[in-house]
Amino acid sequence: MATDQDATCKRLKRIEGQVRGIVRMIEEDRYCIDVLQQLQAVQAALARVEDAVLKDHTATCVESAIASGDAGEQRRKFNELVDLFARTKR
Amino acid sequence: MATDQDATCKRLKRIEGQVRGIVRMIEEDRYCIDVLQQLQAVQAALARVEDAVLKDHTATCVESAIASGDAGEQRRKFNELVDLFARTKR
Amino acid sequence: MATDQDATCKRLKRIEGQVRGIVRMIEEDRYCIDVLQQLQAVQAALARVEDAVLKDHTATCVESAIASGDAGEQRRKFNELVDLFARTKR
Amino acid sequence: MATDQDATCKRLKRIEGQVRGIVRMIEEDRYCIDVLQQLQAVQAALARVEDAVLKDHTATCVESAIASGDAGEQRRKFNELVDLFARTKR
Repeated sequence: MATDQDATCKRLKRIEGQVRGIVRMIEEDRYCIDVLQQLQAVQAALARVEDAVLKDHTATCVESAIASGDAGEQRRKFNELVDLFARTKR
Repeated sequence: MATDQDATCKRLKRIEGQVRGIVRMIEEDRYCIDVLQQLQAVQAALARVEDAVLKDHTATCVESAIASGDAGEQRRKFNELVDLFARTKR
Repeated sequence: MATDQDATCKRLKRIEGQVRGIVRMIEEDRYCIDVLQQLQAVQAALARVEDAVLKDHTATCVESAIASGDAGEQRRKFNELVDLFARTKR
Repeated sequence: MATDQDATCKRLKRIEGQVRGIVRMIEEDRYCIDVLQQLQAVQAALARVEDAVLKDHTATCVESAIASGDAGEQRRKFNELVDLFARTKR
């Protein structure tokens, strides 16, 4: 688990660097389309981080809700996922 | 539940009609941008159907997995949701 | 061009059939996750139709706006694309 | 124009801070769903930056392609937009 979190933090730090790079592109008056492509690259990278965090969530929090046998806790976990899902689509 | 399914079927039949309308627009050589806007309207309508089906799913299949106390079944339900979620994003 | 339009109409008729198939799935009480996957398949097919219509639009309407040398007409065409783009993202 | 670019840079610096905040959340072992919600907030903020850059692009680069009366240049600008559009959708 800790290794996964390390990998996720590393990815996010790379994304932070990419965002800083876009600020520089705008300050240097780089071509808008190149800026827009970089923005798309950052969004794709963030989507991969989302996937990783969701996978962690399933392997840990969701698993422990299943193991607990606590129906209320399980229902909460399902609802959180469905809400997240509804927000992501738009 | 049956009422929800009726409502969903009615919505899908309306969407079917919208798709048929787009075929007609193309045959009548209507302006591309109008066609594209109609395509967007159909996709928005499909997204609302997805929300409704997902809500049904939570209220029925997910609830019965929780009630069953069957950990394997609950795990399957979570994984299905997470897979669906991953596919929707792209 | 006419061939492209024929191909697009054929795809849309296939999509119409897919939507009708989903109505049947719901009436037959098929598993929600299977229904959701079919809804995703229809949305992917619609996205491909959008791509095709957009490509037609560029090859015809946009080209004729460029050929016309009419700045107002060109501006209109750009704005329509940008508006469409803004709506698609959400 | 310069004002618009300043505003966009300011937004991107705020986004950079948000990404750094998510790294901290993960290091502090915060709840996955809260992390996922923050990731969604960052993506929504990036989408707003995209809109702003695209608007700038239309007001400047696209306008000067229209003013130039250069058909090749106009075609290039249209194609760039359509390509960007195609990539955004998926």
